[in-house]
Amino acid sequence: MKRKIFIYDTTLRDGTQCEGVSLSVAAKLRLAEKLDSFGVDFIEGGWPGSNPRDMAFFEQAASLSLKHAKITAFGSTRRAGVKVGEDSQIKLLIEANTPYVTIFGKTWLLHVTEVIKTTPDENLKMIEESVAHLVSQGRKVIYDAEHFFDGYKDNPDYAISTLLAAKRGGAEFVCLCDTNGGTLVGEFGEIVGKVCGALGDTPVGVHCHDDSGLGVALSLEGVSRGAAMVQGTINGLGERNGNANLCTIIPNLILKMGMDLNCSPNLSKLRDLSLFTDEMANLRSNTRLPYVGSSSFAHKGGVHADAANKAKRSYEHIDPALVGNKTRVLVSDMSGRASIMMKARDLGVEIDSKDRAVKDFLEELKNLEFRGYEYEAADASFRLLLSRFIKRDCKEHFKVRGYRVIVERDEFAAITRSEATVKLEIDGNIEHTVAEAHGPVAALDLALRKALVKRYPEIKNMELVDFKVRIIDSGAGVNATTRVQIETREGKELWGTVGASDNIIVASWEALKDAVEYKLSNGGK
Amino acid sequence: MKRKIFIYDTTLRDGTQCEGVSLSVAAKLRLAEKLDSFGVDFIEGGWPGSNPRDMAFFEQAASLSLKHAKITAFGSTRRAGVKVGEDSQIKLLIEANTPYVTIFGKTWLLHVTEVIKTTPDENLKMIEESVAHLVSQGRKVIYDAEHFFDGYKDNPDYAISTLLAAKRGGAEFVCLCDTNGGTLVGEFGEIVGKVCGALGDTPVGVHCHDDSGLGVALSLEGVSRGAAMVQGTINGLGERNGNANLCTIIPNLILKMGMDLNCSPNLSKLRDLSLFTDEMANLRSNTRLPYVGSSSFAHKGGVHADAANKAKRSYEHIDPALVGNKTRVLVSDMSGRASIMMKARDLGVEIDSKDRAVKDFLEELKNLEFRGYEYEAADASFRLLLSRFIKRDCKEHFKVRGYRVIVERDEFAAITRSEATVKLEIDGNIEHTVAEAHGPVAALDLALRKALVKRYPEIKNMELVDFKVRIIDSGAGVNATTRVQIETREGKELWGTVGASDNIIVASWEALKDAVEYKLSNGGK
Repeated sequence: MKRKIFIYDTTLRDGTQCEGVSLSVAAKLRLAEKLDSFGVDFIEGGWPGSNPRDMAFFEQAASLSLKHAKITAFGSTRRAGVKVGEDSQIKLLIEANTPYVTIFGKTWLLHVTEVIKTTPDENLKMIEESVAHLVSQGRKVIYDAEHFFDGYKDNPDYAISTLLAAKRGGAEFVCLCDTNGGTLVGEFGEIVGKVCGALGDTPVGVHCHDDSGLGVALSLEGVSRGAAMVQGTINGLGERNGNANLCTIIPNLILKMGMDLNCSPNLSKLRDLSLFTDEMANLRSNTRLPYVGSSSFAHKGGVHADAANKAKRSYEHIDPALVGNKTRVLVSDMSGRASIMMKARDLGVEIDSKDRAVKDFLEELKNLEFRGYEYEAADASFRLLLSRFIKRDCKEHFKVRGYRVIVERDEFAAITRSEATVKLEIDGNIEHTVAEAHGPVAALDLALRKALVKRYPEIKNMELVDFKVRIIDSGAGVNATTRVQIETREGKELWGTVGASDNIIVASWEALKDAVEYKLSNGGK
Repeated sequence: MKRKIFIYDTTLRDGTQCEGVSLSVAAKLRLAEKLDSFGVDFIEGGWPGSNPRDMAFFEQAASLSLKHAKITAFGSTRRAGVKVGEDSQIKLLIEANTPYVTIFGKTWLLHVTEVIKTTPDENLKMIEESVAHLVSQGRKVIYDAEHFFDGYKDNPDYAISTLLAAKRGGAEFVCLCDTNGGTLVGEFGEIVGKVCGALGDTPVGVHCHDDSGLGVALSLEGVSRGAAMVQGTINGLGERNGNANLCTIIPNLILKMGMDLNCSPNLSKLRDLSLFTDEMANLRSNTRLPYVGSSSFAHKGGVHADAANKAKRSYEHIDPALVGNKTRVLVSDMSGRASIMMKARDLGVEIDSKDRAVKDFLEELKNLEFRGYEYEAADASFRLLLSRFIKRDCKEHFKVRGYRVIVERDEFAAITRSEATVKLEIDGNIEHTVAEAHGPVAALDLALRKALVKRYPEIKNMELVDFKVRIIDSGAGVNATTRVQIETREGKELWGTVGASDNIIVASWEALKDAVEYKLSNGGK
């Protein structure tokens, strides 16, 4: 029978060690459901002993109905010199009431003597007794050997003896952790191979970090050398440089190494899972993540964009749809006429490459990009711009006369007021409106809609769903150019617009205005 | 003699294929100088045939005085069916007037027949003749074999024959490119080993991409199997998921593999180089990059922060100073009392851990973090907050009565006006000031200083050097919470402050106010 590989996710625990990441209990529960529906074997939910939030998660996780994944609680072996049944942290692990418990213990003698200040023998007892006690309480146990590779290089016999202690205690898996992320691929593979030999029928896992930029490579090497479990996190979230990224490891295992996974993940939902995780963690998505990032199959260079068109397989290592991603052609001042033509076709605009207007359009695009505009995520603004050049007779739905924003703060009354006025000319008539909101951009948005909605009721169902601000030359301090990107939705249709200015209100206005103009012009058509 | 490894940087060429990156000629020149002073062997400056900007770079690069690095111009072999001396792109390569020229050619028969539509034989002639012609013009030539690994797996004999053609033409190096980034470590190593055997005394390079998350691992494996050159980019900038990251590869080669580099890089400037490159490319730095990211040696978990204190080597794979980085302790709601105590000590504030105020402070910190504040990059705001709790008698330098911002746009006159008023109470007197600027935050900054400078002339030399805006729950649309981070400098001292609100003006105000308050309170002391 072919060996099956188990996927162990620790986004909810090790992932939250990531700088800038913290997950609410609600977010953890939603992520657990999402992980299960994607397909992983284990979901490490938290460390009941470390904070009240993690305990609250386990209480509520009991009522999740997961189809395949098992929730596991994370903790450490008992303390030195304490009876295992009386160790408060071990008690909390049992109270977490999960089918699996993962405990970590010490491998490296440096840690045994300097950090937890005990003897090598007592450490072995701590491991064996802790595992055995949890097993006696009806838990299945995964043993994480902390600093395994440093410990092994320091003293291989002792390192192996800690694993054998866990095995004697009844551990179902033992997992080798490259805790400080410093190990290289060659030595890692050798050590994993030797451990698999020494452990017999107890399956071995690997838990890697990215401190040397090798988190993924180490995990794959571990599997090649006999490991049956990979621990990692979605998007590689984790302390310091992060944990091994499951969003890269899983497609590599399936699509490139032909491995058989125990959990049969729904690979076409991989990008979804990645984006959802960032959303839960309030993180800006890293567009350059392998497989799942929005740049993964994006082509910019003239040569590549052209060849990707001719022989798609040439510049894409896999079919992007396999991981729920897609090919994109980027618009930039490097891309020249050929890419612009492709992009226009992508957007359904037929243009004649010999048209003089195309040259003028390219000139203007270059100029705007120089001033801070960026169209890679603002298809709607790009299309409006294109229409202005290509169809010289395109209809103007309204003229902007002006607008004003006032933000007023009274510190004694603790009141902030944001008011915006907008003055438009529509069919020769003036619409002059005013609105209030929490912030100046929300007030502008309301006033603009108020001015338009009588004449153009079709804007009623548009909804502004995303508002991003980027300072693009932050070295210029408060006078920096600001780029604002807005995403608007109506039903299933989404469109992106952009504005740029050294005045954040002006940049926001431009993106808001393009969003309605795009809607009114029927998608720039 | 031990083999020396050559470092070939292509940030200025392949790096600019990265989504969202474009480098001005001035930025390219500054980067070239920085790369040379750090220490690399080759700097690929651009593709003279692809755009006028690249040609301008080569014209001006001729007057740079580099101490070690050689500038190389990038291009392709001659076109099929054209005499090499008459090929316009080859002519431009010669006009670039660089000591080295790097040309790429086809390895993969799929490309030979489908993309450039010629015969296998003509392709070999294109390679050999192009190299030979450039050599006859006094250039040293590096030959990049595009899609080498796909080509080799398809037809190993033909793949090798393309390299031998380059060798016959007189290439100094041949470089194997994993152009679409899809190759795994094992097969990559095998192929590099075979090629090194077949090429004899011509040194072999590797050029990898990160599409499978293995860019670094492949590059190191290449060197292990006999490669003498690594091509990559700073911070891994590059098309799609990026090129192999030299900022990870170089320290791995030196610190972990003990390799001897031809260029003797100044490793302690590695983090500097990484930050400088992002600055030139107008990119937000990825804090999680191995070795150089600000998170690389940052400790958050209670256990790790505590152990890193006890046995630093335990959780850090190298001494951070070796690459110009440093250990950081992060403040977050997970970190508990122990980390706060460490952080306070870091900032030079002595606090008594039994003080009730410490508990209150932790409560308030949790509450503020929940509302969107983040103190990881805002030590000054953190310290002010800490002072308010610990030293109950700390002096208040001014009271804020209120402020107002007006942004007015007249579209017909094409005029935007931003005006801010600020009302402070200082020593019982009211200071009510007004200022104008390009944008509302700059106007607020000016009005605030105007109100303070008479009584507190010491704020005169403060300079606002960085202004960052982050929408932290962008899903909430225009009502999203905005976090503003400001960095202020006076002389060599830098301090960071933060504000958060659903009103971008209010968030900016808070960060501006903390920046002056920190200065007036003598660094919160």
